Amino acid sequence: MSDKHFKRVALIGIGLIGSSLAHAMRAYKLTDHIAISTRRQETLARAEELELGDSYHLSAAEAVSDADLIIVCTPVGACEAVAREIGPHLKPGAYVSDVGSVKSSIVAQMKPHLPDHAVFIPAHPVAGTEQSGPDAGFAALFRQRWCILTPVPDTPDEAVEKMRLFWEACGSDVDVMTPEHHDLVLAITSHVPHLIAYSIVGTAADLEQVTRGEVMKYSAGGFRDFTRIAASDPTMWRDVFLNNKEGVLEILGRFTEDLIALQRAVRWGDGDQLFDLFTRTRAIRRGIIEAGQDAAEPDFGRQLAAEAKPDEDGL
Amino acid sequence: MSDKHFKRVALIGIGLIGSSLAHAMRAYKLTDHIAISTRRQETLARAEELELGDSYHLSAAEAVSDADLIIVCTPVGACEAVAREIGPHLKPGAYVSDVGSVKSSIVAQMKPHLPDHAVFIPAHPVAGTEQSGPDAGFAALFRQRWCILTPVPDTPDEAVEKMRLFWEACGSDVDVMTPEHHDLVLAITSHVPHLIAYSIVGTAADLEQVTRGEVMKYSAGGFRDFTRIAASDPTMWRDVFLNNKEGVLEILGRFTEDLIALQRAVRWGDGDQLFDLFTRTRAIRRGIIEAGQDAAEPDFGRQLAAEAKPDEDGL
Repeated sequence: MSDKHFKRVALIGIGLIGSSLAHAMRAYKLTDHIAISTRRQETLARAEELELGDSYHLSAAEAVSDADLIIVCTPVGACEAVAREIGPHLKPGAYVSDVGSVKSSIVAQMKPHLPDHAVFIPAHPVAGTEQSGPDAGFAALFRQRWCILTPVPDTPDEAVEKMRLFWEACGSDVDVMTPEHHDLVLAITSHVPHLIAYSIVGTAADLEQVTRGEVMKYSAGGFRDFTRIAASDPTMWRDVFLNNKEGVLEILGRFTEDLIALQRAVRWGDGDQLFDLFTRTRAIRRGIIEAGQDAAEPDFGRQLAAEAKPDEDGL
Repeated sequence: MSDKHFKRVALIGIGLIGSSLAHAMRAYKLTDHIAISTRRQETLARAEELELGDSYHLSAAEAVSDADLIIVCTPVGACEAVAREIGPHLKPGAYVSDVGSVKSSIVAQMKPHLPDHAVFIPAHPVAGTEQSGPDAGFAALFRQRWCILTPVPDTPDEAVEKMRLFWEACGSDVDVMTPEHHDLVLAITSHVPHLIAYSIVGTAADLEQVTRGEVMKYSAGGFRDFTRIAASDPTMWRDVFLNNKEGVLEILGRFTEDLIALQRAVRWGDGDQLFDLFTRTRAIRRGIIEAGQDAAEPDFGRQLAAEAKPDEDGL
């Protein structure tokens, strides 16, 4: 067992991330055996139908008992229960990691239940789609996406390095930071954007003056992009907000302040303030494209319009 | 000159929408002659290089003098000046339309300057990409997108019908409503989403605890989708907010209220409230996909990940 390879890996939870990891570990030959465990019988059966693993277990304790790497891929709210269940069954030197979108809370939930002879190395692959479940996974999900490792004080350096190699083999770039800094970074880049998207979609659904049919029909004007985010897994996201309260409230406070300043600019017709902001935000967009985190191709005119383009443009 | 065909069409302004209209009118044979006018010499020269029209004019008055249909495709803030300039040069029975994202203000700006012998029929094709300029246009932009006509009291019914046929020929579905209702519908489906996106991108840029590099690197977690909207044309959007103050402030007030309620749920750990909303918003997403306004395919894992999928999935 050297570098990025683990003889036996247990995946606890087999949703979008777990199933994508199963595909990726096979594709990149990162393990000899994938043990899959999930609480619900029908999800486990589906994972088996999809041939995602080598063995299937309703008991997480059984799945981890001989594993060299355990990756907890459940919603964040289930991590404490999982750690409590698997803790006594971990073999000496076993690595325990996760994929949760919050990190301070994961450390607080899991660390107390893990034995000293296990190696704890929390991780967060910043990747996803709006789909969920074992059918949603694909090997390339992590490609060109960042994976953030947030070691705790007693995580050995070689464990950080081994997990870095593992995630790099999955196609990710790897960063290392503290759990606290992670939670603030993700609050602005992911959690608050999701909360805002959920919120505006809810506002639209509740309007009396504009019908839902109208909202759907005219959604191509911008609203549509929010609904895609707001279609993400409800359980996962509830857990994120309950478990990154501090980061989310900090960023949300700043956002609300900024939005109210903009509202004031609209009310008072301050075109210069609006124009200055709208120009500044273009630079951020360029930075994201240069950082390889999005495609530059126009995307608002998607679906049929985009497909028809090559034939009809410039006729 | 019958049904959807106009012998001579003048496009005043040749950005994304104007150039797409030029492509579409050619592709679908909706006119014999496209006269293009724009204020800036270099934009006009670029339109000519791209062969978007049949004649090119720095003077809007000259472009419209023999036109049967004039479509004003400038930013909303320029419409009054354009109407004042072209009003005295319109031939009897000429149709005057536009493509502005606000409608009450367009009516207020343009109507007083148009002669009684012209037919005024404001329009808003709800279509676009985050690109701008004469190079950005393509014929299929309007396909499967809605175009909203907002006739004024003295617009004849046959003019509404003729413009309906024209936009349907461009691939659009056509709706007719009052300018006031249009402005409220668009405030929720387009204007407020854009203001929110601009705002959160600004908030991110100003954080001291999280660097811009970090924001860009981790943007795939959701933030990225906001930056795409927030890269739209600054002049166009400034004008939208200055000219739909009432609709925007109404919807923004409701959104802020809803967001603050969510913030409270996060602070107090009310998981049920969060879960209920997050479940409700999924239904709206499904409605949009069923209405043909977006693709159901997963889109967060875009670019390389998506391209690699067919080869590597399920290995």
